[in-house]
Amino acid sequence: MSVENYTRLVGQQARQASSVMMTATTAQKNAALEHIAQALMANQATLQAENQKDLVAGRDNGLTDAMLDRLALNPERIAGMVEGLRQVAALQDPVGAINGMDYRPSGIQVGKMRVPLGVIGIIYESRPNVTIEAAALCMKSGNAAILRGGSEAIHSNQALAACVQAGLAAAGLPEHAVQVIDKTDRSIVGELIRMPEYVDVLVPRGGKGLIERIANDARVPVIKHLDGICHVYVDVEADLAKAQSIAVNAKTHRYGVCNAMETLLVHSAVAVQLLPLLAQDYAEKGVELRGCAATQAIIDCLPASPEDWDTEYLAPILAIRVVNSMTEAMAHINTHGSHHTDAIVTENYTRARRFLAAVDSSSVMVNASTRFADGFEYGLGAEIGISTDKIHARGPVGLLGLTSEKYVVFGDGHIRQ
Amino acid sequence: MSVENYTRLVGQQARQASSVMMTATTAQKNAALEHIAQALMANQATLQAENQKDLVAGRDNGLTDAMLDRLALNPERIAGMVEGLRQVAALQDPVGAINGMDYRPSGIQVGKMRVPLGVIGIIYESRPNVTIEAAALCMKSGNAAILRGGSEAIHSNQALAACVQAGLAAAGLPEHAVQVIDKTDRSIVGELIRMPEYVDVLVPRGGKGLIERIANDARVPVIKHLDGICHVYVDVEADLAKAQSIAVNAKTHRYGVCNAMETLLVHSAVAVQLLPLLAQDYAEKGVELRGCAATQAIIDCLPASPEDWDTEYLAPILAIRVVNSMTEAMAHINTHGSHHTDAIVTENYTRARRFLAAVDSSSVMVNASTRFADGFEYGLGAEIGISTDKIHARGPVGLLGLTSEKYVVFGDGHIRQ
Repeated sequence: MSVENYTRLVGQQARQASSVMMTATTAQKNAALEHIAQALMANQATLQAENQKDLVAGRDNGLTDAMLDRLALNPERIAGMVEGLRQVAALQDPVGAINGMDYRPSGIQVGKMRVPLGVIGIIYESRPNVTIEAAALCMKSGNAAILRGGSEAIHSNQALAACVQAGLAAAGLPEHAVQVIDKTDRSIVGELIRMPEYVDVLVPRGGKGLIERIANDARVPVIKHLDGICHVYVDVEADLAKAQSIAVNAKTHRYGVCNAMETLLVHSAVAVQLLPLLAQDYAEKGVELRGCAATQAIIDCLPASPEDWDTEYLAPILAIRVVNSMTEAMAHINTHGSHHTDAIVTENYTRARRFLAAVDSSSVMVNASTRFADGFEYGLGAEIGISTDKIHARGPVGLLGLTSEKYVVFGDGHIRQ
Repeated sequence: MSVENYTRLVGQQARQASSVMMTATTAQKNAALEHIAQALMANQATLQAENQKDLVAGRDNGLTDAMLDRLALNPERIAGMVEGLRQVAALQDPVGAINGMDYRPSGIQVGKMRVPLGVIGIIYESRPNVTIEAAALCMKSGNAAILRGGSEAIHSNQALAACVQAGLAAAGLPEHAVQVIDKTDRSIVGELIRMPEYVDVLVPRGGKGLIERIANDARVPVIKHLDGICHVYVDVEADLAKAQSIAVNAKTHRYGVCNAMETLLVHSAVAVQLLPLLAQDYAEKGVELRGCAATQAIIDCLPASPEDWDTEYLAPILAIRVVNSMTEAMAHINTHGSHHTDAIVTENYTRARRFLAAVDSSSVMVNASTRFADGFEYGLGAEIGISTDKIHARGPVGLLGLTSEKYVVFGDGHIRQ
């Protein structure tokens, strides 16, 4: 079968399965999740043996140690997937909830019902546990899923897919509700992203390059997660103890994550007091500092170049800029940021409100670390990704982001006059 | 200036204006709407003189009478636009509303704030009053707008644009908050739909061909309104008096509208009783009937071809099919419908609930005419269009559909552990 025909067949099967998943009961979906969890536990040996094939091939193909680590399925990671499935089963089922059934002057009663999107395509790279996370979230939200993992994880993903199929079958749900692509042809992605008749939305998970390529070529809506250039602005009326701990936490809690601070903006009136304290903290953590001229006049650091303001380091490097007003800080954030997560540290009520309204980012915070921008921290239970888009869903995307709302109208024989 | 540079300049100006509109107060936005209304009234003579140029050119270019009628700006239509502006001013401002600020175990408080999308591009055909409707909805929802009307309405739209500019200026809002493209080069649309850096979402309003072309070529998210193949299913337990009035209203209230019924599905157990009554009603209204074999056995009508089930007539023509179960009816709707608006007529509670859950359309109704699927009837105040998409917004799109939600986090110096 040609790649095109194969991909279209997968799409048709997903579309058919989605009409069953749309009305599957919460009990059925939770039963399937539990059966998958049990299948993972029962098949640990197989999963590890198949994973071993990927690890051997990966080593032969020159994958780095970090990549091999992400690829590995050890007993702790399998336990983590089992735990994740049970967490998703415990989440409230969003499907079918009806809200705001208000009467209109005509006499009809109108509200909205939460419904699945239909078929979700997920394109991801090495970590095989994404297969289980994505399958669980799509199933619980009543969607069918087409999962396309990296070729380096093909054996692991197929072994995981067998567990998912077994769980779906045991719960009486269609096996095509979750399909894991079993071919490694790169052209499958090209087909998958151009089938709006079979795929309702794409969620690419991986590097910025992959996501930009997909967004550029797709004919299907894409929930994108591009870069995270996050800021903390320390206001003239900041509590400097809070500012210090937030600035340290936002930068140093973890470096390689999208919600880490990349640029610190400090009001000139507090910079002389705050920056030396922070410089000492960052020095202890081994963070390289790159400052504007005003920063360099206060602390010892490298000079920041214009490129620094637009860079997502994902590393122990921090750009620092002294600003003369909150307006200047907000202009910097809206110009150089990536509209991901930005925080203000201030005790001033009016400026906190203004910052919240005027900073155009998916998460805006007052007196809290940017590191909180996360599906688990926000109480979504789990996240399929973090959206830096503006339409449909912004910020961490959980079950609700995989649903939409349709209008429901109740009448009693009402006709339009 | 090249078309590309011109369009990019418009985009840059819109992006800048959107950052001001994002935090404009409700009072400012309402003042601008009222000033535009006053400008329309004060400039009636100019508006009609400019419109006359378009009408003369249209007649020379062979526009049909129907097209010329849509193009005409008479005093009633100007009064209608004034009324529309005041209705939008009276609507609740959605921007800035914060919902669900819940405390999390970490101690942070997390909720969502409603925010404008940014820059909305609207591409539309002949009716010049869309210029005012679209400008009003985009402004009230805190967005900047780029409006591209049809070349046949260029003089009318520029005269309306002058009133909009005057209103924005009088309220102290940026003149680029609403830009009406003043060139007729067709290639401008091609540029506009490929500038994700300046345009956040596109709303094409016009024929299916225009919308499909735009959706196919766009690099910017599109809120699409494709066809409306709407159904009424009369169940075995229908109240036949309700069924009769709903079936007549859904087909004959207006013919050329997307929420008119195009196919009637009747359960075989009630077809013999209902169809002769309906055939008489439709005959009086001059509606041509095209039936399946079972329908033809009951009433005198033309035979329906397979294409009839997939056709949006927008005309006094109705396809009728007799089905043996609700399952068969729902399969027909989900296969042949356009996921726009579908209704069931039944007194049975369980089947009504099942129909609501399993019919995958943007509006699903019980015992009401499909003609109610409309922004005004639903209480949205006004609509920018009706979405047949699944992500972001389904069904009539009002002010809320031109906004999104961002996360807001309140802390007290909280850091992630």
